[in-house]
Amino acid sequence: MKLESLRDLLVEQLQDLYDAESRITKALPKMAKAATSPALKAAFEKHLRETEGQVKRLEQVFEALGETAKTKTCKAMQGLIAEGEETISENAEPEVRDAALIASAQRVEHYEMAGYGTVRSYAKLLKEDACARLLEQTLEEEKATDEALTTLAESTINVEAV
Amino acid sequence: MKLESLRDLLVEQLQDLYDAESRITKALPKMAKAATSPALKAAFEKHLRETEGQVKRLEQVFEALGETAKTKTCKAMQGLIAEGEETISENAEPEVRDAALIASAQRVEHYEMAGYGTVRSYAKLLKEDACARLLEQTLEEEKATDEALTTLAESTINVEAV
Repeated sequence: MKLESLRDLLVEQLQDLYDAESRITKALPKMAKAATSPALKAAFEKHLRETEGQVKRLEQVFEALGETAKTKTCKAMQGLIAEGEETISENAEPEVRDAALIASAQRVEHYEMAGYGTVRSYAKLLKEDACARLLEQTLEEEKATDEALTTLAESTINVEAV
Repeated sequence: MKLESLRDLLVEQLQDLYDAESRITKALPKMAKAATSPALKAAFEKHLRETEGQVKRLEQVFEALGETAKTKTCKAMQGLIAEGEETISENAEPEVRDAALIASAQRVEHYEMAGYGTVRSYAKLLKEDACARLLEQTLEEEKATDEALTTLAESTINVEAV
């Protein structure tokens, strides 16, 4: 299918994010299991519930656009998650592994921040205001998760890993 | 090799970024070639020169730490670049492809922002102040590139793709 317009690209980008989010819901329980710090485990579990909500929100966006919710394989998220799995199975002290898990998770958050920033910008330009608001909500959640991980890392996890 | 401490993790993360940057220097000329907008071509070419400087800066960081500059395969960047190559070869109107190229490039920038944010934070905590300053410089360049791409997209490229 040829991408004729920014609207076609918006739909394709949403399919990429829909695939990415679904991969993340499968990866987060493994990250939570691998974490030693109870606070980090809790952060991953909280973000899992949030991600499940983000999947539903994407379905609302597809619906608002009159499109079927479909996935397009997100090769970048495949790579990011493969990197996260390396971290999980790495030979490391528990405190160091926790720091490495945060580093992996923040790379995933940043992918999503870039992705949602892009689609929100397209939706605004296309005057799809309801979609733009939904996408903005997820973008804000991703930023908040990233900041919470930074705080957790800098206040305790990294310090313990020194 | 077991990761015993945050310092070991810092070195491993630098190896990941060293690999990522080297992949980006190979990808950017293809992105520049695929771009139709002269302003976007110029932005990719400018960032290529900057990335070459960032590779050298990472070599200075390894040296300051008394470590050999080595790479560790960055699976995430492999995935991000595979996604960028899909964009290059996608069947799309030129204006839409330009918008998609920016979307890909911003995902790469965000990976780097997460990565450099992490290593700068480790270097600060480990009192490796010279390294922290070098990594901060690159982090600021990545943020500036990301913002420049947003401005280019929102002021012209996306508007033309509508």
